[in-house]
Amino acid sequence: MSEITKVALDAMGGDHAPHEIVKGAVNALREESSIHVFLVGREEEIQKELSAFDYDKSRIEIVNATEVIETAEPPVNAIRKKKDSSIVIGMKMVKDGQADAFVSAGSSGAILVGGQVIVGRIKGVERPPLAPLIPTEKGVSLLVDCGANVDARPSHLVQFAKMGSIYMEHILGVKNPTVGIVNIGAEEEKGNALVKETFPLLKEEKSINFIGSVEAREIPHGHSDVIVCEAFAGNIILKLFEGVGMTLINQIKKGMMNSLRTKIGALLVKPALKETLKTFDTAEHGGAPLLGLNGLVVKTHGSSKAKEIRNTLVQCVTFKNQRINEKIRESIQSD
Amino acid sequence: MSEITKVALDAMGGDHAPHEIVKGAVNALREESSIHVFLVGREEEIQKELSAFDYDKSRIEIVNATEVIETAEPPVNAIRKKKDSSIVIGMKMVKDGQADAFVSAGSSGAILVGGQVIVGRIKGVERPPLAPLIPTEKGVSLLVDCGANVDARPSHLVQFAKMGSIYMEHILGVKNPTVGIVNIGAEEEKGNALVKETFPLLKEEKSINFIGSVEAREIPHGHSDVIVCEAFAGNIILKLFEGVGMTLINQIKKGMMNSLRTKIGALLVKPALKETLKTFDTAEHGGAPLLGLNGLVVKTHGSSKAKEIRNTLVQCVTFKNQRINEKIRESIQSD
Repeated sequence: MSEITKVALDAMGGDHAPHEIVKGAVNALREESSIHVFLVGREEEIQKELSAFDYDKSRIEIVNATEVIETAEPPVNAIRKKKDSSIVIGMKMVKDGQADAFVSAGSSGAILVGGQVIVGRIKGVERPPLAPLIPTEKGVSLLVDCGANVDARPSHLVQFAKMGSIYMEHILGVKNPTVGIVNIGAEEEKGNALVKETFPLLKEEKSINFIGSVEAREIPHGHSDVIVCEAFAGNIILKLFEGVGMTLINQIKKGMMNSLRTKIGALLVKPALKETLKTFDTAEHGGAPLLGLNGLVVKTHGSSKAKEIRNTLVQCVTFKNQRINEKIRESIQSD
Repeated sequence: MSEITKVALDAMGGDHAPHEIVKGAVNALREESSIHVFLVGREEEIQKELSAFDYDKSRIEIVNATEVIETAEPPVNAIRKKKDSSIVIGMKMVKDGQADAFVSAGSSGAILVGGQVIVGRIKGVERPPLAPLIPTEKGVSLLVDCGANVDARPSHLVQFAKMGSIYMEHILGVKNPTVGIVNIGAEEEKGNALVKETFPLLKEEKSINFIGSVEAREIPHGHSDVIVCEAFAGNIILKLFEGVGMTLINQIKKGMMNSLRTKIGALLVKPALKETLKTFDTAEHGGAPLLGLNGLVVKTHGSSKAKEIRNTLVQCVTFKNQRINEKIRESIQSD
């Protein structure tokens, strides 16, 4: 039996907090026996939500935090001033070893800043990237960095590739994962200054399976297991993935409600359509870890519901059991 | 009646040349009476294709060009060496005033280089951006720049916004078109160095209707009429738009072929689905103009078929009649 993974969960973060967050925690306990959850946030509110569920009381604890960091707050300031916020308290628990991981659907900015300032980087890691799994025709790809470090340097991207490869190999079980760099053409001489400088470095890097440039068009087809890019580009990729998918689905649904004929057709195809949409639902794949920290910090969508929280909590167990951070430490420090 | 628009059309460019290109030209004549087409390329091949059609022989001329620039060729070299290529010959016709516009589905690199080197920039224009229309829930948005100038500077982006606004107002008929800058957050202080520097410049620019940052997720919803970004980001947006759309549609189609029930449903919804897909088909909206040149150069998809060629040719007529280049000249030189 594996040891217990202790997760500090931000009960106050996201559009559906605390209800969906608490529900996700309860569901995670049911699915994964080796997890212990600290619900961090306003005790009374959390207690009220919890009282609606039947759960193993020895495996969920409430950690009181009276403040909440709002998404609109300037993150550096918020982390510094709101010492009693769920994000600061939860991250300190990771820093102090009381928790293995911190999970939050709250302010991205505060999570990124707090991850670096409170939890801290693994020695040798220059920039911790945010690395979500994105759905593809073949399964999933890991997108590093999707938003943590704008205007990154080539050496950062090389580390993203190494950390991403470890994640895909040991969390997703992909043997010798392929790595591609986002580019605007397939040839080595294409790209902006950053990509042109990074390309030869990735080519030389023996610990990864670099397969060259990936054009954005190829990403949804599952071009490579790890997709490396600077955060501005990565954020565009992630958000557009969600935006185009959602828009297209809405349009298709609307189109199907056009006439009696299409309405009948829609009824018949609905289950199949639902199945397809599920494959393209980012919530199925849990939150995005911030790689390279002394502990695990995971950001889930602001719109997270119980399912995404549950999936993310279960992911934390694999992260700990596979000793991802030790592998990252070895890989980065071997340079 | 408007005057005649003369278009030099690269008969050798793209995956389906010369057949679909020639067919597109013939169809454009039928739709638009004030157009005259020069088919530039290998005379014999073009003649053979043309002979299959019934058309007004006084409105299509063949201009012989014996060489073809392949997509894989380094563009600068190709433009310099292949003096008798369809791209070089066609662009020279624009330069010399024999044609108002040049349209090609061939090598993007060669078209971008040739546009600058042969056709030349309007005085005052720093970088000519490639500006395709992309489909949205509300209609279309103009994406400038989608791939011409990687690592652009703030002043370039301001010019993109001005030229894009003129295009949307006078080609698409959008009154006082809104302009957004692609960013990774809605607030002014978000973004990479380029966006942070460009944002206040756009805000100050009185000739445009700047409405702030646009997150990638909002683009398919039709956030703004003109979407300004650096070419690396723009290329990702364009390609991912196409990639995610295509993948999702393939998955949905596959899902619908799962069982007899879904197959019957698919038959019933097919026309509605087709209509929806048509809205999201970039070919419906013609090619991407390279804005700010002394003449018009339009790049169409490498996979262009007759429909896209026809739509693009018709677009050239509006471009000329609306005197877009004169308006760009006035706007840029008024600074």
